Amino acid sequence: MPFEFKLVRRVEFSETDAAGIVHFSNFFRYMEAVEHAFIRSLGFSVKLDQHDPPLGFPRIHADCDYRAPLRFEEEFEAGLLVREKRTRSLGYDIRFRRVGGGEVARGNLVVVCVAHRPDGSLAPTPIPGELARLIEVAPADRLGSGPGP
Amino acid sequence: MPFEFKLVRRVEFSETDAAGIVHFSNFFRYMEAVEHAFIRSLGFSVKLDQHDPPLGFPRIHADCDYRAPLRFEEEFEAGLLVREKRTRSLGYDIRFRRVGGGEVARGNLVVVCVAHRPDGSLAPTPIPGELARLIEVAPADRLGSGPGP
Amino acid sequence: MPFEFKLVRRVEFSETDAAGIVHFSNFFRYMEAVEHAFIRSLGFSVKLDQHDPPLGFPRIHADCDYRAPLRFEEEFEAGLLVREKRTRSLGYDIRFRRVGGGEVARGNLVVVCVAHRPDGSLAPTPIPGELARLIEVAPADRLGSGPGP
Amino acid sequence: MPFEFKLVRRVEFSETDAAGIVHFSNFFRYMEAVEHAFIRSLGFSVKLDQHDPPLGFPRIHADCDYRAPLRFEEEFEAGLLVREKRTRSLGYDIRFRRVGGGEVARGNLVVVCVAHRPDGSLAPTPIPGELARLIEVAPADRLGSGPGP
Repeated sequence: MPFEFKLVRRVEFSETDAAGIVHFSNFFRYMEAVEHAFIRSLGFSVKLDQHDPPLGFPRIHADCDYRAPLRFEEEFEAGLLVREKRTRSLGYDIRFRRVGGGEVARGNLVVVCVAHRPDGSLAPTPIPGELARLIEVAPADRLGSGPGP
Repeated sequence: MPFEFKLVRRVEFSETDAAGIVHFSNFFRYMEAVEHAFIRSLGFSVKLDQHDPPLGFPRIHADCDYRAPLRFEEEFEAGLLVREKRTRSLGYDIRFRRVGGGEVARGNLVVVCVAHRPDGSLAPTPIPGELARLIEVAPADRLGSGPGP
Repeated sequence: MPFEFKLVRRVEFSETDAAGIVHFSNFFRYMEAVEHAFIRSLGFSVKLDQHDPPLGFPRIHADCDYRAPLRFEEEFEAGLLVREKRTRSLGYDIRFRRVGGGEVARGNLVVVCVAHRPDGSLAPTPIPGELARLIEVAPADRLGSGPGP
Repeated sequence: MPFEFKLVRRVEFSETDAAGIVHFSNFFRYMEAVEHAFIRSLGFSVKLDQHDPPLGFPRIHADCDYRAPLRFEEEFEAGLLVREKRTRSLGYDIRFRRVGGGEVARGNLVVVCVAHRPDGSLAPTPIPGELARLIEVAPADRLGSGPGP
């Protein structure tokens, strides 16, 4: 079960641009929002401040393919699937659909667990076991299901 | 002399919205950009990390009046004047003009010097003397000049 | 009844800054989000495209006073009150409270109804009657209640 | 010559996040800024409003790999190379280096030329000849160079 998560949002005016559509960079903010909501749904936060040094999950890769524009006040669903789980990193596949419509975009995030050292540097570190245990990789048929409905 | 600063920028596409103009919230980002450039021009940064605890300048007030829209790729000047200087706070008056055109907006920022305590709280504290010494309040005739020519 | 509206949100990571708190400019995006949700709650949109020429509601004034910082993943309530209603403009008072906590900020927006003329210019125009009829000014005791408990 | 372009910027405070670094989504805004500056350097704009219907260049793909964080007030260079030129689309390779330092990120954009039809739909259309003529694909040794794997 804990290999997917869905979020429904409505496009805000500040997310649009002068072409009348959601600015492409905001899909990356939406991807992060669904990732963080997924982690919260497991009872955790991506900001693991109780650890010493504190842990975080910076992105090492992000991509998005855009198929159709989203406009102001349209509702869309961002569906996250866990594509990959490693000792120090997680890979997410995120698909955007218009509510009551077709796919608008599809993207990926790869995040790595790091410790924020006192000197400001970031050191890759294993994902804490109590969180890693809760996360599964999605079945291949879910990940491979293509752009389809 | 160190009571004013000017910055010229060009509107970026990501700063516009579906009405085809700069989103009103971005004028506050522009105001902060000119404030920070002013402080840098004095040889300082608003992030005073060499202090212990580190100092910062969060905003306690911001306002903006909008007179005309700015559009993608238009060039504008943001002109900052120091309106008020107190022990712990600074007030800035910022006016936006289209390059080769009239006024588009006018706003104010009030920032307060705070210490970032280890527990995460913010404690108001005097502006460091070496910075405060360099900042003057603009003459009344400059501040009072109204929406201008 | 239709003189107020409330929205509960959770701070997203992309809304924070390097001081560890919500960037002050994002409170203006939150204010606009609650304004737009208020208009939607009346069955309308701020983008009145069915009018010819299409109507919109650009801001002519915005301000915010900041009392306490908001941090990543904190929940807050943005409460909108209609402060002023004129033929061509509306004034909103918006108060931000931490869920289960005190006030964090308070701001105002003044928006004006305009027609988007084919040449790109904006012409102030009366708010359509079917929308204006639904909007009331909040009672004085609600508006005057100060920063309150 | 017209297959590359470089832009130097300084990180603004509003571009950082609570991890103390530039929010990953802002690299996509930087990529678009250098793309638009490249087109301007050729005497054109990505907003081709003089065409009827007006043309634009929405993104159909964007990706970024992050190697090192950028922080507030750091200066960086965004270097664009034209990777691919087709009848209706352009592919850009963009590399970010800290001024006086190493690579911080590397990304790609693929943009497609579209006509904005009166009904709001976007129709792929050939890039106007007078612009297409000015754009060359970068030599293979330039595209294949760099710190990459």
